[in-house]
Amino acid sequence: MTIATCEINPPSRLLMGAGPANVHPRVLRAMGADVIGQMDPEMTAYMDETMALYREVFQTTNHWTFLINGSARSAIEAALVSLVTPGMVVVVLNIGRFGLLLREIVTRCGGIVHSVDVPWGQVVDPADVEKALRLHKPRLVAAVHGDTSTTTAQPLEAIGALCRQYEALFYVDATATLGGMPFKTDEWHIDVATAGLQKCLAGPPGSAPITLSDRAVAAIKERRHDEGGIASGAPQGEGPVIQSNYFDLMMLMNYWSPQRMNHHTEATSMLYAAREVARLVVEEGIDARIERHRRAGEAMIAGIKAMGMRVYGDETTRMYNVTGVHVPEGIEARRIQELMRRDFEIEIVSSFGPLTGKIWRIGAMGINAQKSKVLLTLAAFESVLSGEGIPINRGAGIDAARAAWNRAGHS
Amino acid sequence: MTIATCEINPPSRLLMGAGPANVHPRVLRAMGADVIGQMDPEMTAYMDETMALYREVFQTTNHWTFLINGSARSAIEAALVSLVTPGMVVVVLNIGRFGLLLREIVTRCGGIVHSVDVPWGQVVDPADVEKALRLHKPRLVAAVHGDTSTTTAQPLEAIGALCRQYEALFYVDATATLGGMPFKTDEWHIDVATAGLQKCLAGPPGSAPITLSDRAVAAIKERRHDEGGIASGAPQGEGPVIQSNYFDLMMLMNYWSPQRMNHHTEATSMLYAAREVARLVVEEGIDARIERHRRAGEAMIAGIKAMGMRVYGDETTRMYNVTGVHVPEGIEARRIQELMRRDFEIEIVSSFGPLTGKIWRIGAMGINAQKSKVLLTLAAFESVLSGEGIPINRGAGIDAARAAWNRAGHS
Repeated sequence: MTIATCEINPPSRLLMGAGPANVHPRVLRAMGADVIGQMDPEMTAYMDETMALYREVFQTTNHWTFLINGSARSAIEAALVSLVTPGMVVVVLNIGRFGLLLREIVTRCGGIVHSVDVPWGQVVDPADVEKALRLHKPRLVAAVHGDTSTTTAQPLEAIGALCRQYEALFYVDATATLGGMPFKTDEWHIDVATAGLQKCLAGPPGSAPITLSDRAVAAIKERRHDEGGIASGAPQGEGPVIQSNYFDLMMLMNYWSPQRMNHHTEATSMLYAAREVARLVVEEGIDARIERHRRAGEAMIAGIKAMGMRVYGDETTRMYNVTGVHVPEGIEARRIQELMRRDFEIEIVSSFGPLTGKIWRIGAMGINAQKSKVLLTLAAFESVLSGEGIPINRGAGIDAARAAWNRAGHS
Repeated sequence: MTIATCEINPPSRLLMGAGPANVHPRVLRAMGADVIGQMDPEMTAYMDETMALYREVFQTTNHWTFLINGSARSAIEAALVSLVTPGMVVVVLNIGRFGLLLREIVTRCGGIVHSVDVPWGQVVDPADVEKALRLHKPRLVAAVHGDTSTTTAQPLEAIGALCRQYEALFYVDATATLGGMPFKTDEWHIDVATAGLQKCLAGPPGSAPITLSDRAVAAIKERRHDEGGIASGAPQGEGPVIQSNYFDLMMLMNYWSPQRMNHHTEATSMLYAAREVARLVVEEGIDARIERHRRAGEAMIAGIKAMGMRVYGDETTRMYNVTGVHVPEGIEARRIQELMRRDFEIEIVSSFGPLTGKIWRIGAMGINAQKSKVLLTLAAFESVLSGEGIPINRGAGIDAARAAWNRAGHS
């Protein structure tokens, strides 16, 4: 066999889609450091620092705040497979593509799903969640904060309080919003939250932060079953064995504890990346970072509207960091995306399911939640749309976005 | 909260343990490239190239050769959870720590395990595997090629032929040997093989190559169940749903196919790393690379013996890339490891289970399977051992290793 390949050389592309977004150069450089042994004191110190840093990112005092070695989805599965026992009743907020994913994973874990359904693009009424809590008496409620497929964020605070009241654990995936929208793990009574690095956190996909409340940890401890090769003789749990070894959060906690019970080999380079990602969040300040995303979203929306396009979804429940734009009748969404990429090296995307080809999604997250990136994207977008014969108020979008950004700074 | 952390700055340490080993600088640099969109044509081209490159690494013509996004263990779980149906009979080679891990994972997947047991450090007799095949009629036989916990490699070729004869699928984890010992997926009738990057491949932990034969793919296709948010309307399988979403190899194949059915967001930076890892293997030539590891192992063993220490395990079944050394009576293994690290910035490790503190494991893999690294490690080792009062033939180990390396070059 002869395989001719070249040195890695991806195009320099501005990623204004639904994620991944461009990675902060400091994070890329952090991955350039060579690995060290997984039990070396410097490595375990980096692990401990990473735990402390993500407590700040998640706004929690939870001790058990660490990384799952995989994409954002891996942490969703780790959370659900460790919490859901066979036959457990789980209420899932069915609000978009990622609500469907939660349903799917809970079912594969042996849970019985009752959905609180809303049409894509709308938010759940907490009163409906309360009804479900009363009717189904779930042990767990599972939700996605911001579902990028619909550009909509769910009202978690009210639901978290209800979960506490009805003694259900509350699991939330915050992949698309952490670091870009307010997300208060403790204040909102969230028992388990998970995320990825590749959206508002400006890191690469492939490492997934997770945080667990004491209540969640207590439930998982019931299921402690150390694997044969490394069993320590510690008391084992009486609950059912977690059906995954890789995602067994009890074993992962033992690995991230001072005992350092061996499990997988920690993904060293991605740990370096995740740590640098969190350092950048802490340096900027979580509130300042969220405000920057809010401002970018506001400017983007002002620009889209001023150029004469329709913004998707409801003003009050829209995510800061990704904006949906209605695709005009008769326009092939994909063609516009291709022209944006080919002529401007800018990525925007469409969506899934009922929204496939119906909306574009334009993100401004992580290092791309910046004035210049928003303005240049709008400049490219109006040129491409106009070139395809869509009536556009030339220049108006860019000017409106500039004005909105500057105004937003004073609010 | 105030968290003071410094820029990433790990020590420059020579990792001569059981893995991870040091990462090739070209692989570290590859991770410095910014990410691109997961469906961008350059990204999917990189994915296709990665498939082709790993076919050569695995020495297979299997089309389905790709990456699992996680540590080496994640690919083990992906293979087993996708192959093992509830109640399926599986024969596992129970040969060390990682044999126990296979048993553990198969059991969590709902399989019924029958073990072929041998004491740690020994190899399985293929006749015993044949007995198990006759008696238990398994659908699957699961094995680890080289178990670093025992520094021993199993005779896969004979077992593969038996599996074909008795119509069982054959799964092998090659994490510790791929790229460092002969491993012939097709020739040895291996249906599914998995690995990690952090041993003989000189990459970082966190990405796990996998290859699947047509027979394995046919079995997995029976279990096709697309998740709700992305279902394509394609015919679904009639077999039981795979109990993991993240590790559902059918969905992963659809993601790595020209259809690019969305699943997780591919871990871009780790894909860049995995691709560069395989490019380096192909450039060097797989046979030359294996020969380099063999030579390093031979030199290490010659050195250990000449300095007056006892090498662990059987000459004929020993792994090339990691050498066990008996810890002398009355010596605390950990203290020697700490002195190696503190005074020489060299990592060596002990082992697990019955071998904890009984042997040291000294690896020479990836970029560390090099003359200079072997010699410098031996120089440090003899100094530390001697300093602790162990009688050592000073200088003899280094000289013997130099001679063995040079000799090995002519064999």
